[in-house]
Amino acid sequence: MDDCIFCRIIGGKLPSYKIYEDEKTYAFLDIAGDFEGHTLVVPKAHCTDLRDCGAEDLAAVTAAAQKIARHYTEKCGYDGVNLFNCSGRAAQQSVFHFHVHVIPRRTDDGLSVCPTGEDKGYDLAAIRDKLALD
Amino acid sequence: MDDCIFCRIIGGKLPSYKIYEDEKTYAFLDIAGDFEGHTLVVPKAHCTDLRDCGAEDLAAVTAAAQKIARHYTEKCGYDGVNLFNCSGRAAQQSVFHFHVHVIPRRTDDGLSVCPTGEDKGYDLAAIRDKLALD
Repeated sequence: MDDCIFCRIIGGKLPSYKIYEDEKTYAFLDIAGDFEGHTLVVPKAHCTDLRDCGAEDLAAVTAAAQKIARHYTEKCGYDGVNLFNCSGRAAQQSVFHFHVHVIPRRTDDGLSVCPTGEDKGYDLAAIRDKLALD
Repeated sequence: MDDCIFCRIIGGKLPSYKIYEDEKTYAFLDIAGDFEGHTLVVPKAHCTDLRDCGAEDLAAVTAAAQKIARHYTEKCGYDGVNLFNCSGRAAQQSVFHFHVHVIPRRTDDGLSVCPTGEDKGYDLAAIRDKLALD
């Protein structure tokens, strides 16, 4: 995938600040520089987003994110992590190679990363009836 | 875990709007009502957060989230999903049973769920040197 920026990073055709690598995954710092230690974990095999990721690659990406979360909190002075994924343009995805954001957190960092909104009074029973998998 | 609200939901001791269930996972609507279709996916076996979740349970939760993401976008009229996880009080976790948020999105929903901030000019090479796994 020569036109995929993450495939080019994985293949060494573009530079990256590598954090972790194993047979199926690659992790590197997000160049946005918006959160200290903002890391992306991606499968080496190209897929677009969560929905078309193969089962083994998906498990490997999640396991790598877990390993990184443990490392950041046990060895690097952070107190927790947020994981984040955007799947689909409607979900604010901007690079169309599946990636999981890992954002390390400190107790006193003052960030509000977790998306929370006001209770909008949805009819949860009606939504459940619409969304439940059979 | 009688004092864990999610264990009580899984065990049927508290009601929930169930979306999906399999051998290892349970998914239900978040009662916050802040995002339409806001869903939580949890392992049936209690663990605190991403860091202490067993490998099989972690893979099962992620696979269930993928199944739900496909269902919401293929069958329920949504265009994408965000996944989110808070691990640790410092990461704004509030219920200490590992859970992955699934937030279905529409192209025209006008939400800004994805956490993005300004570029703070971090020295990425120095951060990489601090955080990289050997």
